[in-house]
Amino acid sequence: MAKIITLLTDFGVRDHYVAAMKGAILSGQPDATLVDISHKVEPQDVAGAAWLLEGCREEFPPGTVHLAVVDPGVGSERKAIALSAGGHYFVGPDNGIFTLVLENETDSTAREITESTIPRPQPSAVFHGRDIFAPAAAALAGGFDFEDIGPIVETPVRIAPPEAATGDGIVSGEVMHIDRFGNLITNIKPGQLINAGIEPRAMTAEISGTRIEMFVDHYASAPQGEAVLLVGSRGFLEVACRDGNAAEVLGAARGERLVITRSRK
Amino acid sequence: MAKIITLLTDFGVRDHYVAAMKGAILSGQPDATLVDISHKVEPQDVAGAAWLLEGCREEFPPGTVHLAVVDPGVGSERKAIALSAGGHYFVGPDNGIFTLVLENETDSTAREITESTIPRPQPSAVFHGRDIFAPAAAALAGGFDFEDIGPIVETPVRIAPPEAATGDGIVSGEVMHIDRFGNLITNIKPGQLINAGIEPRAMTAEISGTRIEMFVDHYASAPQGEAVLLVGSRGFLEVACRDGNAAEVLGAARGERLVITRSRK
Amino acid sequence: MAKIITLLTDFGVRDHYVAAMKGAILSGQPDATLVDISHKVEPQDVAGAAWLLEGCREEFPPGTVHLAVVDPGVGSERKAIALSAGGHYFVGPDNGIFTLVLENETDSTAREITESTIPRPQPSAVFHGRDIFAPAAAALAGGFDFEDIGPIVETPVRIAPPEAATGDGIVSGEVMHIDRFGNLITNIKPGQLINAGIEPRAMTAEISGTRIEMFVDHYASAPQGEAVLLVGSRGFLEVACRDGNAAEVLGAARGERLVITRSRK
Repeated sequence: MAKIITLLTDFGVRDHYVAAMKGAILSGQPDATLVDISHKVEPQDVAGAAWLLEGCREEFPPGTVHLAVVDPGVGSERKAIALSAGGHYFVGPDNGIFTLVLENETDSTAREITESTIPRPQPSAVFHGRDIFAPAAAALAGGFDFEDIGPIVETPVRIAPPEAATGDGIVSGEVMHIDRFGNLITNIKPGQLINAGIEPRAMTAEISGTRIEMFVDHYASAPQGEAVLLVGSRGFLEVACRDGNAAEVLGAARGERLVITRSRK
Repeated sequence: MAKIITLLTDFGVRDHYVAAMKGAILSGQPDATLVDISHKVEPQDVAGAAWLLEGCREEFPPGTVHLAVVDPGVGSERKAIALSAGGHYFVGPDNGIFTLVLENETDSTAREITESTIPRPQPSAVFHGRDIFAPAAAALAGGFDFEDIGPIVETPVRIAPPEAATGDGIVSGEVMHIDRFGNLITNIKPGQLINAGIEPRAMTAEISGTRIEMFVDHYASAPQGEAVLLVGSRGFLEVACRDGNAAEVLGAARGERLVITRSRK
Repeated sequence: MAKIITLLTDFGVRDHYVAAMKGAILSGQPDATLVDISHKVEPQDVAGAAWLLEGCREEFPPGTVHLAVVDPGVGSERKAIALSAGGHYFVGPDNGIFTLVLENETDSTAREITESTIPRPQPSAVFHGRDIFAPAAAALAGGFDFEDIGPIVETPVRIAPPEAATGDGIVSGEVMHIDRFGNLITNIKPGQLINAGIEPRAMTAEISGTRIEMFVDHYASAPQGEAVLLVGSRGFLEVACRDGNAAEVLGAARGERLVITRSRK
């Protein structure tokens, strides 16, 4: 079976840190397939990493191990955990980075990674990615029994992801992520609009003082340069600007509020 | 046989988009070998992507599948295509991204990717990279019969790549790409100079108001900091600046005109 | 056996250069596993590349081939070499990029890469990474006999890495690298402090006009925003700033001097 391990960190791609982790993985499982999710998570942005992981994990085949290391608490009392959920494994610090996996998978089990999983005699106090998480991920990819990882962690840490609020004719959400194209991806799902009695073709969005009334199916059907609403590839409402950068055009940042109301006719 | 798939996009490396495509590929072919060409193509820069692809595709072994997704028209009427050319496959939107492959390979056949190739029941209207192109690339890498991809596309879209113009004692080309080192890579081949009766050792180049008269074999033989001409690794004339950045020194951008004339003695 | 090849260059990730090298490797060894160390070495920064390589090479399994191409002298008289050291192979220009490997491994042998190793009939004068080093690395990964690479190079080029100076109650070193988090990694090892009669819990550091007196075990035990000293993941003393960027806070750059003295009580 293919041993697929994804990597998600805030290490950047300039330093040797990611390579050190990959070397540690390949020392355990030389035939592993390594896939970078991103190493450009903002330093210490656990919530941002959780959001990226959730956006792609389900694309991977069963048995994939996701190694996620955004770890401001490295060396402190925070636990090192492995998670079994949705047919995949997840390895990283117990700091909320797996919040969305825990929210969206009903079958999850978390275990604390203990010394028996880790071959490295003296792990560095500042680089558990290399010395604890990488070897644990390699072990799981290689068939190491999840039960033997360590004791069950009953309540792994969750961070509260902001939820969109729904009223009659109104949905209020926020920008969760701004992508490379400047698209503003929110936490509002089309179903919430329907629940609020808002039809996609008759809604008004307000964000950063700008009103947006056009809803399109795909980028190319939007008028050049104008901000529009559409349902993005993760199923969330997003604000985009054809051949432009919506974040720049609207002066909007992550966390910005987006309020959708029923259009008055 | 190795299942090598290259990826070329304008998705950047910060978001989860590339990983989502890779997950979709590995779900189809878990033992595929994935190689990034670049994800830093400027947003929607189809011509730039075409140029990068042409600069490395021939290095890959027979049977390689090149997945190229710079796709401003995603979700619109533009076709999804696969190309068989030069012993490789190419998968992406029919928007000109394969122009240089079509120009330089005489044996190419294009086919439209139809539903039978794509396992995903409801492809997203905004992310065909993940939902259509990745599965198609995986299928081709795994031995899926190219004939079964879909109907032949007689005239896949081409964009007109700018050609250097040649006269007696003069060749006029332009900067196609500026690389990380600031080297200005043009569309002029040494053969065109010879056809114009210009000898490499006796030519004058003019670009952005600067005259360059020195032609060298390799960077290290240029005087420190001075702009020189040389034949780059793709066989095109380029302007470089040893231990410096020619683009900055000359204030030149992509599209800048470079005119080569015979030196007067 | 797994054929693992790492890549370290100053090519960046925007151009097609890295992909061209990978294609050349896979043409030789289609089942090679490719791992990027970094391609964001500053242009022509041989010493910086040497430092990154040293920071991760030992994590890789025996037989790994490290391909390192920061090569301002490409096309000139500088030799192309392969190194056998510490159970790994190293391939690149003979310009000092392997200095730290040569310093730290006692069993090293260097050989000049000659034409017999290289299948490419006419290597480009400006891209040996693709035309000479990549094929040589692929050959070594595939079991090509190291003895047949070419004649022994008795004294491969070394560059002098700056060493920390030790006196009674004083150690003077410098910043070797600033990582993505802004951590200032020095060339001072804790053992040098001990030799100088300085205890970690009673030392004062001075850098860029700032005094630092707090020594911590890991980032999370530092007070928010304050510059502290700790032993980093490579075993060197580093200056960090919890949830902040020490380089920015201190206005320090690579090469900055760090002086450690015994604290007066």
